[in-house]
Amino acid sequence: MAELVNSGHTIHFETELQPLKTFLEDAKYSKIFVFADINTSAHCLPVFQAMLDDFSTFDVIETDPGEENKNIDFCIGIWKTLLDFEADRKALMINLGGGVITDMGGFVASTYKRGIDFINIPTTLLAQVDASVGGKTGIDIDNIKNMIGTFSLPQAVFIESAFLKTVPERELLSGFAEMIKHGLIIDKDYYEALKTSDYKNISPELVYQSVAIKNKVVTEDPLEKGLRKILNFGHTIGHAVESNSLSKDKKPLTHGEAIAIGMICEGWLSHKNSNLTRAELEDLTAFIKVTYPQYTIKSKDFKGIQELLKSDKKNEHGQILFSLLESIGQCEYNCKVSDQDVIESLNYYNSVYDI
Amino acid sequence: MAELVNSGHTIHFETELQPLKTFLEDAKYSKIFVFADINTSAHCLPVFQAMLDDFSTFDVIETDPGEENKNIDFCIGIWKTLLDFEADRKALMINLGGGVITDMGGFVASTYKRGIDFINIPTTLLAQVDASVGGKTGIDIDNIKNMIGTFSLPQAVFIESAFLKTVPERELLSGFAEMIKHGLIIDKDYYEALKTSDYKNISPELVYQSVAIKNKVVTEDPLEKGLRKILNFGHTIGHAVESNSLSKDKKPLTHGEAIAIGMICEGWLSHKNSNLTRAELEDLTAFIKVTYPQYTIKSKDFKGIQELLKSDKKNEHGQILFSLLESIGQCEYNCKVSDQDVIESLNYYNSVYDI
Ligand SMILES: NC(=O)c1ccc[n+]([C@@H]2O[C@H](COP(=O)([O-])OP(=O)(O)OC[C@H]3O[C@@H](n4cnc5c(N)ncnc54)[C@H](O)[C@@H]3O)[C@@H](O)[C@H]2O)c1
Ligand SMILES: NC(=O)c1ccc[n+]([C@@H]2O[C@H](COP(=O)([O-])OP(=O)(O)OC[C@H]3O[C@@H](n4cnc5c(N)ncnc54)[C@H](O)[C@@H]3O)[C@@H](O)[C@H]2O)c1
Ligand SMILES: [Zn+2]
Ligand SMILES: [Zn+2]
Repeated sequence: MAELVNSGHTIHFETELQPLKTFLEDAKYSKIFVFADINTSAHCLPVFQAMLDDFSTFDVIETDPGEENKNIDFCIGIWKTLLDFEADRKALMINLGGGVITDMGGFVASTYKRGIDFINIPTTLLAQVDASVGGKTGIDIDNIKNMIGTFSLPQAVFIESAFLKTVPERELLSGFAEMIKHGLIIDKDYYEALKTSDYKNISPELVYQSVAIKNKVVTEDPLEKGLRKILNFGHTIGHAVESNSLSKDKKPLTHGEAIAIGMICEGWLSHKNSNLTRAELEDLTAFIKVTYPQYTIKSKDFKGIQELLKSDKKNEHGQILFSLLESIGQCEYNCKVSDQDVIESLNYYNSVYDI
Repeated sequence: MAELVNSGHTIHFETELQPLKTFLEDAKYSKIFVFADINTSAHCLPVFQAMLDDFSTFDVIETDPGEENKNIDFCIGIWKTLLDFEADRKALMINLGGGVITDMGGFVASTYKRGIDFINIPTTLLAQVDASVGGKTGIDIDNIKNMIGTFSLPQAVFIESAFLKTVPERELLSGFAEMIKHGLIIDKDYYEALKTSDYKNISPELVYQSVAIKNKVVTEDPLEKGLRKILNFGHTIGHAVESNSLSKDKKPLTHGEAIAIGMICEGWLSHKNSNLTRAELEDLTAFIKVTYPQYTIKSKDFKGIQELLKSDKKNEHGQILFSLLESIGQCEYNCKVSDQDVIESLNYYNSVYDI
């Protein structure tokens, strides 16, 4: 399959890591570290090793899985481990895992001795189509997502469907939301193709197209000064609903489930405040409704969700700015929306399941 | 006085911060934070405010002074303070202090929400001629210096002799060592000019020349791939002697005092392993000897110093590499030196004070 080149680093698809061998041979790193969590260490490390064919020696740095461990305490632990292993500036870190691993591993690598090289091997659908591309690294602080981080590009990204085989279904569904988003904001044909696909068995070709869309956007605007903001479609309300769910629900929403909700709400806002037609709104609503489980946003939580919106990282000068669809396949950014409309969009989401 | 432009950001000299007013007016930051330690808050903040003439409102973030507080715990504190103050991506951080403040403030700013703008106003001689220029930010971990950091340029640097008036003499002497280094590695005339200067009353012109030298080197090699390593002259042994002193001496060496020692040792190595003549070695030895207080490197500490050398951040593939003088005003880098020569260079330093 093709590869994508993005300001000097390459995203490789379905290569069974063969280019990684050449890369490691040429680059002559002083030490190689594989960073994984206990799940990817169990499920992905054997696949990785088989592909590399015992080609190279490396040390594994293992961490606990999940967003709750994507924090500065774990980073300190990893920095100290690198010190203990006497990692110098010519060391390489290979991040083998989901978005938590690629985000946190990227942050640790980009700050250790002011930056060592790293490679991302995303092992969830979400990390493949979203987290591993675009150079954002980050960790949470006080449970606020990605408050600390850098913009740092990996040396290369390797995307292999082989790793997806062990990913739990609910995690696949989570990543699928970002693919739908990519279609909605940029590519109507891609969106239509997703409608007839099966998220439990996503084809490498669809993954490739999703990465290509994200890569195109971030290459045009690496530091999120403008265009890149369209990637936030569904994420403004989605993030607030996600945080609210994390703090209140026994079984909280995944990121993708929350973004699916956010896309319905912001679809409604797009119809109200931008040019999305009623028919288009109904189309995306129906697709998301058959794909994602029902959820109710409690009206007593509306106020809290509005508070969360106000503290969104992407706000500027205290103003909440939305990315809204002008049509399916076209998105504009920096749109202002009234508080009242936000509430109505939440009501719209709830009403969808009444019918 | 002139200004220096370095890949888009400007170093302003003796402007009484007038360009800062214009800059703040144009840039429209959502919030301005001044980061200081309790000493610079007491001595420099009033000067800063007087220069700015109550021009702008800002919040002050204050920290404890000294290298021992240049660590991740303080960074976490500052990140959380920024969050509490609802600092968004359009916030600005003005680092007002010595190298600890510009290094740590730069690191915090370059990682908060993946990077907000910052400005450096160095208030010690060392920070003016060295720390504030070149885009290195950093903090210590496990007492190992600058293990974590980024390469991030401030929006601008302001160098004002007015701030130096309250700097303790010993701190001035510390910064003076970096100026001597700048002369030794690149500019013989500048080195000669320093010999007839008074470090307690250093002229803005000499500060300017020193910054110009550093700026030239780091502009040619921002990421320390090659040339920039000449700035490490005196620092390989100097750092090891400094760490040794910090862990053993009741009144440890300052950074500059240790670098002065390092320059004598590495001067000796330059004579032994590069082209520095005996006369040149004696010249630099004599200058440093009359300028810096006597110190004895205990022979029982030699082993420990050699261990420290081996863990130097700048080593690659476990090899200690020195920057050595080919003559006064010329320096080469990536020079290998035998363990035996390192020991002899320490003996040479001690012998200097026997005569
Ligand atoms: N940097 C970016 O641009 C960007 C974009 C989107 C999301 N993100 C970040 O990504 C994170 C979410 O990513 P994620 O959903 O991959 O989370 P994750 O890394 O927590 O992975 C989800 C779960 O799946 C497990 N897992 C991973 N790969 C597996 C495999 N092959 N087989 C079995 N189990 C496996 C993990 O251990 C974890 O328990 C968030 O922290 C988010 O902020 C970053
Ligand atoms: N980034 C770089 O390229 C670079 C280069 C050299 C040094 N550094 C770093 O710089 C640090 C050392 O810098 P430093 O010597 O300025 O240390 P410092 O910031 O600790 O300042 C020394 C002391 O002087 C006080 N002080 C500062 N300004 C004052 C003023 N105007 N009046 C009175 N007191 C004042 C401080 O509070 C402190 O107690 C080290 O951490 C070192 O790693 C960085
Ligand atoms: Zn997302
Ligand atoms: Zn120094």
